[in-house]
Amino acid sequence: MTKPLRIIGIDPGLRRCGWGIIEAVDNRLGFVAGGTLTPPVEGPLAGRLAALAAGLNLIFDQHAPDEAAVEETFVNAGMRSALILGQARGVVLVTPALRGLPVAEYAANLIKKSVVGTGHADKNQVALMVRTLLPTAQFKGADAADALAIAICHAHHRASARRMRVPA
Amino acid sequence: MTKPLRIIGIDPGLRRCGWGIIEAVDNRLGFVAGGTLTPPVEGPLAGRLAALAAGLNLIFDQHAPDEAAVEETFVNAGMRSALILGQARGVVLVTPALRGLPVAEYAANLIKKSVVGTGHADKNQVALMVRTLLPTAQFKGADAADALAIAICHAHHRASARRMRVPA
Repeated sequence: MTKPLRIIGIDPGLRRCGWGIIEAVDNRLGFVAGGTLTPPVEGPLAGRLAALAAGLNLIFDQHAPDEAAVEETFVNAGMRSALILGQARGVVLVTPALRGLPVAEYAANLIKKSVVGTGHADKNQVALMVRTLLPTAQFKGADAADALAIAICHAHHRASARRMRVPA
Repeated sequence: MTKPLRIIGIDPGLRRCGWGIIEAVDNRLGFVAGGTLTPPVEGPLAGRLAALAAGLNLIFDQHAPDEAAVEETFVNAGMRSALILGQARGVVLVTPALRGLPVAEYAANLIKKSVVGTGHADKNQVALMVRTLLPTAQFKGADAADALAIAICHAHHRASARRMRVPA
């Protein structure tokens, strides 16, 4: 048996940022923790981003993941939304990187394919499969389910991602 | 004479991030330092953002600014550019905020108006006026000039910005 590897998946967002941690031992996956960070929706942007970073740092302190995985985002909701999501994404990518963790990025359809078997699954199908793959999982909400799906995707693809030098 | 206030202005960018520090004593402004951070253009995004954050942290350690000011960005160059700039911007906003510094944001035309007198100045006019307002300034490049302009704008507007609760 190899040493367990703790993976955190993060679904970036300024208002709702899903996170989920799994442990991978050989081919077996286990649920560790998951939830949704909800930084304040009011106040200066820098403070909202700092609250997001502080929330993530607390999770890293508490659960000590070994590697991080983040969904590659493509926005179709206008320039303003892309800029806002980009800012949250910058914080989500830099926080584990500054702690020395490898950070991989995966396209949304690869994540869906990893858990559901098809790249065109909807949110309900993803959540259902996450609960099937991680039967002991206790979490609420679609953002946490998405984050756990990102972590599962990384567990499946980290070997090849590493060969392709995707992580830092 | 009041205590000098050190202001850092930052012009966010993933490939070129301008920074400039001034000291304000009453109505007089003095140049402290300025330059351009150029994180690696290759490699995983998280690593490039971490290099940007590390570069900024080094500047904060070395020059100990009291307040930070960042240009409000509006992108017209497509969703992908907005997302990339957003990610750099997230790092630029969160780095001083995590150190407990107030972070103000100013629109590009207010910054230009503060240094040139009109909101429609071009980059050369901004650089020329920055050199006029800070005669001892030693810096290279348009990004550092823009960053110093942002710092000058904050020196002029920080009292009202603070009233309007713009900083954190």
